[in-house]
Amino acid sequence: MRVRKKPWADSYIKDHADLIVIEPKDHIGKWQNRFKAVQPIQVEIGIGKGQFIIEMAKRHPEVNFLGIEIQESVIAVALRKVVESGLTNVQLVETDGADVDELFGEGEVSQLYLNFSDPWPKTRHIKRRLTSPGFLATYLKVLKPEGRIQFKTDNRQLFEYSLTSFNNFGFTFEGVWLDLHKSDQNEDNVETEYEEKFSKKGPIYELVAYFALKK
Amino acid sequence: MRVRKKPWADSYIKDHADLIVIEPKDHIGKWQNRFKAVQPIQVEIGIGKGQFIIEMAKRHPEVNFLGIEIQESVIAVALRKVVESGLTNVQLVETDGADVDELFGEGEVSQLYLNFSDPWPKTRHIKRRLTSPGFLATYLKVLKPEGRIQFKTDNRQLFEYSLTSFNNFGFTFEGVWLDLHKSDQNEDNVETEYEEKFSKKGPIYELVAYFALKK
Repeated sequence: MRVRKKPWADSYIKDHADLIVIEPKDHIGKWQNRFKAVQPIQVEIGIGKGQFIIEMAKRHPEVNFLGIEIQESVIAVALRKVVESGLTNVQLVETDGADVDELFGEGEVSQLYLNFSDPWPKTRHIKRRLTSPGFLATYLKVLKPEGRIQFKTDNRQLFEYSLTSFNNFGFTFEGVWLDLHKSDQNEDNVETEYEEKFSKKGPIYELVAYFALKK
Repeated sequence: MRVRKKPWADSYIKDHADLIVIEPKDHIGKWQNRFKAVQPIQVEIGIGKGQFIIEMAKRHPEVNFLGIEIQESVIAVALRKVVESGLTNVQLVETDGADVDELFGEGEVSQLYLNFSDPWPKTRHIKRRLTSPGFLATYLKVLKPEGRIQFKTDNRQLFEYSLTSFNNFGFTFEGVWLDLHKSDQNEDNVETEYEEKFSKKGPIYELVAYFALKK
């Protein structure tokens, strides 16, 4: 999502250094210090304007949520919502979500959310898809043992690719939904801004998977 | 599919004992003897009126096809088509496809087709689904190493279940298609009678998977 530069964003971010991090490498292995309570950390890669992660934080006060987004003008809007919400279990990180293993320590993350990530449809761009084997390997480094990945998309080809990719990598499937909004699973579903808009045009797909240690 | 009893079926089957088997246990481990040429054997479980397997046999003369169907009135129709086709690489078997490990020897089957099998939607009937772990285990007994299973359905819940079941059993996905008829894969797709009719109502799902020996 490309958006116009927001002139107020830069200073607003600087004014709220308690809720947003712009130098994530200073916090590797000690993200818990950013939160009021020590509780499991769940991470969303690419939060956009933050609707998903803020609603998740409201519903799950027993979890610390960390939202990553690279675009300043977008994360600034999310930040404003966090400030207004008064929530103490959300922290934002303005950075590229591509290298999570350079942002977190081993096992520091309990769960990862990948919502409507870029489908990169061309074969020569496969490695950029956030569900390609290279990325799956980095997620495993930061996830605690059997920590889950929840992946949602409305892109059929990306979901076909991702099912195969997670499978071939050796993940265990907890569940697959091929029309999330028409399933029982939808009761607990929190929609992203994008999802709200595009779910009218076709099915939303979801996979929940974890990497089981082989016995 | 329930159909009316066909009065001609019984004697027609008896008259074509060269093309249809009604005592499959006599042939375990020696199904090749039923064919003109020794070539890989592929099996469809539940052939209905045989449209799929007969078209496959036409397209793939280098393969021996074996079609299993329990309902006499239905398999008799398929048999008539085989007789009329003059094909020498199709054999039919009138029996319950549920226990393939009692029909074939170890590694006797190169590939298995499960087309639009009964979804058994109720949780208490999960074990009857042809993609449940109990059945997957019997398929492995008769498939040659890394022999493939091709599974098609139009039932969303059954496909969601099956993706999870195949994955968690340890199968490797070769490919997943969430709208087969709109994909490149459709070029080689052979439709069943049921598929022809129901693909207008919604997507056809396909999974191709094999069991890789762990290194």
